[in-house]
Amino acid sequence: MKVKNRLLNFGEMVIYQDDDYFLFSLDSVLLANFVNIKLTDKKIIDLCSGNGPVPMLLSFRTKARIFGVELQKYIYDLGIDSIRENKLDQQIEFINEDVKKLSELYEADSFDVVTCNPPYFKYKENSLVNENKGKAIARHEVEINLEQIIKTSSYLVKNGGTLAIVHRPERLIEIIKLLNKYGFEPKRMQLGYPKEGKEANILLIEAVKNGKNGMKILPPLIIHESNGEYTEEIRKLFGSDL
Amino acid sequence: MKVKNRLLNFGEMVIYQDDDYFLFSLDSVLLANFVNIKLTDKKIIDLCSGNGPVPMLLSFRTKARIFGVELQKYIYDLGIDSIRENKLDQQIEFINEDVKKLSELYEADSFDVVTCNPPYFKYKENSLVNENKGKAIARHEVEINLEQIIKTSSYLVKNGGTLAIVHRPERLIEIIKLLNKYGFEPKRMQLGYPKEGKEANILLIEAVKNGKNGMKILPPLIIHESNGEYTEEIRKLFGSDL
Repeated sequence: MKVKNRLLNFGEMVIYQDDDYFLFSLDSVLLANFVNIKLTDKKIIDLCSGNGPVPMLLSFRTKARIFGVELQKYIYDLGIDSIRENKLDQQIEFINEDVKKLSELYEADSFDVVTCNPPYFKYKENSLVNENKGKAIARHEVEINLEQIIKTSSYLVKNGGTLAIVHRPERLIEIIKLLNKYGFEPKRMQLGYPKEGKEANILLIEAVKNGKNGMKILPPLIIHESNGEYTEEIRKLFGSDL
Repeated sequence: MKVKNRLLNFGEMVIYQDDDYFLFSLDSVLLANFVNIKLTDKKIIDLCSGNGPVPMLLSFRTKARIFGVELQKYIYDLGIDSIRENKLDQQIEFINEDVKKLSELYEADSFDVVTCNPPYFKYKENSLVNENKGKAIARHEVEINLEQIIKTSSYLVKNGGTLAIVHRPERLIEIIKLLNKYGFEPKRMQLGYPKEGKEANILLIEAVKNGKNGMKILPPLIIHESNGEYTEEIRKLFGSDL
């Protein structure tokens, strides 16, 4: 069902969602908060944008031109509705396209920053039993996998430019290998833990194209208090009714 | 100066140190606490052992035979003194040897677990200005570097066996590349943060020889309270006067 959410900490920004298809999540907020944006950055592109939370949130952090790319038409349309209602259509160009085809649309080395909140799960036939196709594509590597995303990002981003991804910690080693394979040096990481004393379940990682080595690991993000409510740190990041 | 420390949480275990040469640190306690030891493990080896804290601490966790290897004779002798005073010389075999030569001493694939708290810093001539040679060797990659340690570990540990290292987070990517190069799959990580809100400064990482992929990141370790005292979690780990 299509619903309208408000992100209260962002000037009452509106975001349309449909829980039959795709709900934007805390992960997108964390990614938009985590990525390093320079004052001089001119062009930013968000891949696998869903209903557009990352491009919209980034608009609070930069005057750069922001591109968002989403394959699935129905989810893309939710993003378009939100972008228009928030009057962000001057800054954000939202595209209904396959990320794998972006090298036909854009010049190489033409973006300062790439962000992505990709499908987290490897695709197996039986993964899809309890999901409709739209949800499966958003959550599983049905239409695109991590290697295709990182390869495309390496094409799009300029030398010294940044790729920031949110993913699952269990895939950290694979992510690092693929970043290295496509010329990225991982430089910053931050881990999200569901509660104090629990294993991490959110990985934020940023890499620089042809960057020098040397990793920084930012302070841990604890998501929930023991009573299940968001921690103050997370509540400060956004104020929706999610 | 040679001093005698007590680790109060370990049956008043004694550890001899000399602050002119090498002080065993919290990092060794964290490593001995972090590494996965199985009930069936029979042989464990600790490389770059210093004055022997990791072998001695591991003796509280296992009946396995524990080997420790330290190159520098004076620091090695401190370890021997401690091991004898703690009556651990039946379980721990402490060797004054160069880690690079261990393939001449031990059979391949003959250990269940390898641990190492190696020199953290890359060797540069000017690194040594404020240090004596003994301290420099313990802290900088003068006599051995990370690749030589991981290569030797891969020789020593059996298939499916474990290598656990404590190091600095800035070298995470290099560590992962070298682990992969020598047939290890990183499986578990834990990060230590000096205080709440600060970047990580301790990396604990464990890899399995020819293991399957899939990473677990354990809860963060915050080392100090804002007033500079150890946190309760750290105080529970050891009770020395360090």
